[in-house]
Amino acid sequence: MRVNGKHFRTLWLAADGRSINIIDQTRLPAEFWVVRLEHLAEVVAAIRAMQVRGAPLIGVTAAYGICLALADDPSDKALRTAYDQLLATRPTAVNLRWALDRMATAISATAVDDRVGTAYALAAKLAEDDVATCEQIGVHGERMLRTLWDQKGTRQPLQLLTHCNAGWLATIDWGTALAAVYRAHDGGLPIHVWVDETRPRNQGYLTSWELAQHGVPHTVIVDNAGGLLMRQGKVDLCVVGTDRTARNGDVANKIGTYLKALAAHDNSVPFYAAVPSMSIDWDLANGDDIPIEERDPGEVHSLPGIAAHNPGFDVTPARLVTGLITERGVCAASEPGLLELFPEQGAG
Amino acid sequence: MRVNGKHFRTLWLAADGRSINIIDQTRLPAEFWVVRLEHLAEVVAAIRAMQVRGAPLIGVTAAYGICLALADDPSDKALRTAYDQLLATRPTAVNLRWALDRMATAISATAVDDRVGTAYALAAKLAEDDVATCEQIGVHGERMLRTLWDQKGTRQPLQLLTHCNAGWLATIDWGTALAAVYRAHDGGLPIHVWVDETRPRNQGYLTSWELAQHGVPHTVIVDNAGGLLMRQGKVDLCVVGTDRTARNGDVANKIGTYLKALAAHDNSVPFYAAVPSMSIDWDLANGDDIPIEERDPGEVHSLPGIAAHNPGFDVTPARLVTGLITERGVCAASEPGLLELFPEQGAG
Repeated sequence: MRVNGKHFRTLWLAADGRSINIIDQTRLPAEFWVVRLEHLAEVVAAIRAMQVRGAPLIGVTAAYGICLALADDPSDKALRTAYDQLLATRPTAVNLRWALDRMATAISATAVDDRVGTAYALAAKLAEDDVATCEQIGVHGERMLRTLWDQKGTRQPLQLLTHCNAGWLATIDWGTALAAVYRAHDGGLPIHVWVDETRPRNQGYLTSWELAQHGVPHTVIVDNAGGLLMRQGKVDLCVVGTDRTARNGDVANKIGTYLKALAAHDNSVPFYAAVPSMSIDWDLANGDDIPIEERDPGEVHSLPGIAAHNPGFDVTPARLVTGLITERGVCAASEPGLLELFPEQGAG
Repeated sequence: MRVNGKHFRTLWLAADGRSINIIDQTRLPAEFWVVRLEHLAEVVAAIRAMQVRGAPLIGVTAAYGICLALADDPSDKALRTAYDQLLATRPTAVNLRWALDRMATAISATAVDDRVGTAYALAAKLAEDDVATCEQIGVHGERMLRTLWDQKGTRQPLQLLTHCNAGWLATIDWGTALAAVYRAHDGGLPIHVWVDETRPRNQGYLTSWELAQHGVPHTVIVDNAGGLLMRQGKVDLCVVGTDRTARNGDVANKIGTYLKALAAHDNSVPFYAAVPSMSIDWDLANGDDIPIEERDPGEVHSLPGIAAHNPGFDVTPARLVTGLITERGVCAASEPGLLELFPEQGAG
């Protein structure tokens, strides 16, 4: 997507053909800063510190972490160490495990001398697949936005509320929830986005920065404000991303998402989650067993002597979710809904 | 209440017998700073800047604002000017109008030469009444906490969640929601408080500071976290204050309160509001017409070029409120419930 009019992705191979460049998201929106990662340890640190974040981007970054580890040492032991270290960085997003499993399976089946090439080729494919997936989510999401716009039947902008950042910064390109917004905006649909600031990490300012770069009208609000806005009729729909969605449509996403889903339900505001299929954990019957990452209380405040608790995610029950926007279309947030689009995941 | 072991109120007459001293709440918890207000303009500025805040405290402070105005000029014109300026400071809390009306009625009926004395006497009475009211809310609230504790039937602490600051800093002394907590804690009931930080003004740190001074165990969380905690069974009840409660039990309180009430309802967690009767607007049939203060977007962020919207309050519908804790007892959040305790407000 565009940064000062120039096209960027969130991660790309450096000129040496081996290292990767990332955008340091902890420095945004104050400054746009590209960081080069050359070894596994740097990738692990970058994911932990949230220099890269967003479930899809974490998955691809971890795949390149495997590449960098193998470039230093292509042994089974090094592969296993890299897998374990990367998997331990962020427990909630399932894309991480999904990407690591894809990498480990392919590499284990490859002769040691060929592993580095195999790894880089597969990591590049995962990145391209992510771009294609997000673009398709944008296509289906845009159609859904246009339907809501037609139902609204005014010339007033469609009012969307989003939480955290489910834009291109959370993926390789396009974004998930915001892919639909970008396409709709480019297609001439008047749209305004209420952006939750998303404490404690303030990813709302990543969303605001993206939207500003793309020219999409938007307004930042504190996380407390969305309920009032929905009661006042100032929100036409909510769209969020996901870090892991269970088989029944329960959606784990950034802490606070559940509260917005409750308010949407209470005010008959449609609530959608944009869900790339690699964010679906088909092995989980529902969201109860999704691990919730507990992060450093120092992210909440730095006052001495005051205890803080800092869970990073919550689970929104499927009953509060109007629909899931996947790369294959929009479906009900339920097992039958998902299986209609992904029949290959059926039990039979 | 206690500050470093010494007893304080939030507002008291200065040694000159005319000016008032307040605790500058914008400097807490970093520093405890007492400010002396000598003229009406200073009182208006202090309320606007939230050096004093909390519906009950705003009411009494405004009453002393009238006193200071009359000490400079006891004319009808000066009274009217002071009334208008003070009323315009904060639109949502009804205590402000209630206190100003009490003052204006008494002063208008008093000869000009006697007005200053009448004003100071009545302002002092309003302060004492507020202390007595809060103490009674504490008595009834403590009883309610003990009942829930008995129902819980374990030796684990009673887990309470609160939003914003409804402690002694929001009143002259004791607090409303926290009055019950202080009494219960002093009476040996094990209690732990989850404190919402309460963006954008972070009044949660006022609550944390108060609780720490009193020795009550507590943990600060971001406003996004309460829903997850309730789903995890880590909250036994929510208690908040109110800036204005309508005749039907709809509760206006700090922005974000409604989201917590939704989560409480979704998880069968009791949700109480502590409501001094001077916070009840008997003229409003429901909360729909409660004016919502819009505050400076600069409270949300100070980044250049990014729009922000900053509503200060929301309204929690009575259907989500388990009960109202008043100075006369706990009642259902409904007109019949309130009229049982306040029959003098009945239509007949």
